[in-house]
Amino acid sequence: MTKRDQRDDARFPRRGGPPRSGGGGGGGASFWLYGTHAVTAALANSERRFRRLIATAEAAKGLAGLRLPLPVETVERAEIDRLLLPGSVHQGLAVLVEPLAALAIEDVARLGSLRPSCVVVVLDQVTDPHNVGAILRSAAAFGALAVVVPDRHAPEETGALAKAASGALERMPLVRVTNVVRALDELKQAGFWVAGLAADAPKTLAEIKLTGRIVIALGAEGEGLRRLTREHCDHLARLPMGGEMESLNVSNAAAVALYELARDG
Amino acid sequence: MTKRDQRDDARFPRRGGPPRSGGGGGGGASFWLYGTHAVTAALANSERRFRRLIATAEAAKGLAGLRLPLPVETVERAEIDRLLLPGSVHQGLAVLVEPLAALAIEDVARLGSLRPSCVVVVLDQVTDPHNVGAILRSAAAFGALAVVVPDRHAPEETGALAKAASGALERMPLVRVTNVVRALDELKQAGFWVAGLAADAPKTLAEIKLTGRIVIALGAEGEGLRRLTREHCDHLARLPMGGEMESLNVSNAAAVALYELARDG
Repeated sequence: MTKRDQRDDARFPRRGGPPRSGGGGGGGASFWLYGTHAVTAALANSERRFRRLIATAEAAKGLAGLRLPLPVETVERAEIDRLLLPGSVHQGLAVLVEPLAALAIEDVARLGSLRPSCVVVVLDQVTDPHNVGAILRSAAAFGALAVVVPDRHAPEETGALAKAASGALERMPLVRVTNVVRALDELKQAGFWVAGLAADAPKTLAEIKLTGRIVIALGAEGEGLRRLTREHCDHLARLPMGGEMESLNVSNAAAVALYELARDG
Repeated sequence: MTKRDQRDDARFPRRGGPPRSGGGGGGGASFWLYGTHAVTAALANSERRFRRLIATAEAAKGLAGLRLPLPVETVERAEIDRLLLPGSVHQGLAVLVEPLAALAIEDVARLGSLRPSCVVVVLDQVTDPHNVGAILRSAAAFGALAVVVPDRHAPEETGALAKAASGALERMPLVRVTNVVRALDELKQAGFWVAGLAADAPKTLAEIKLTGRIVIALGAEGEGLRRLTREHCDHLARLPMGGEMESLNVSNAAAVALYELARDG
């Protein structure tokens, strides 16, 4: 497999894929997950389908005692370097997997409507895979229901995303939608209130005192939410900043917002 | 300048450097800052000393209208790639700078003792430059006094750190200390309470209700605070997690902790 192939393969399941509720595997192109946490979390996930598991002799020792769904191929570190995108910090461990079955926004809306309170994170144009991965991890830590991203303008580098998610990609549904505004409408119809983070909002997220089913929508750093997305929010809220800088890294802002929503929950 | 040179140069001012209160420039080895936010923030900082400013023709347009402390050299993108570490996302803009004058822990203690309330972040073995950069940015956003890191086990890649800090490196003191425990003692003597984040702590940070001068200490992901550091904390506190994952990315944990401390402040 050439690097060009890997780049093409490093894709998330598209919305068009079979929904998780429909059961079965992903059916999309396979891609490499790498790094200790991302790989061991994938190996422990019974819904994952695997093609290859490769490890340096050193990293293979760390797998001893685990019940593995496929045999380990012991390889040189340079071989792993060759298979991954340049700069991938793989810690001597990589696994070629098929994408998980994709959850559709309708599934998220239905699951949400069955709960008295829950949180869904919607990312409007957040593209950096490290940020999306860290947000998946925080969403898992604070018990969110799902993270929703646009089908375009979202990271193709699934391996980097999975590494930043530190295993959370296996547990936290990442839902791709073709239209963020339509996704917000779908969630509203299921009883969600939509709160958009905006630096110029008069009230803070804490002041709004949201309860029940909540969507927290975050835009790209700098630009914030797009106009049409803003208009589809029930509330706009800011995070209180005491200092001179007006913005947080988007994954830090998401963590703070998720914490605030979980704080009184 | 070769890549090897750049790697050696990409260092923070050591503790031994002249303190900021002593005035004057850094005097350390120069290093490259890159990326729009990091470079424009540096150019706006009257305390920075510059050696070279390079930009692609496209990026140079973005500098038009700014009062620049040195002339722009317009270069090809490949020339910038060649000067930086592989994988540096420079957006066509880089500036060769001298380190800022280093602030000593004694300066932080003295500044803190003059305020009724303030927050200092102490990082025990957090090494990833993206994390340290994002924490600097959050510290600036929430109005912290300084971020303290050990002289060893801390990022050498100042350019990557500055990029993640998105300009905050110019405003938020990053203080290197040879001994974290001694730094905690120094801060305690200046009237700070030290709260360490620990996943196994019985109380949450919100439950402790800290006020006044506060040090928030964070350890490496996974391992947490070292034993000796833990023993020097006045309080141990956890962040409440509703989900199945027990840990946040360290920069996300820092942002949440800073938010919680600023929330009722």
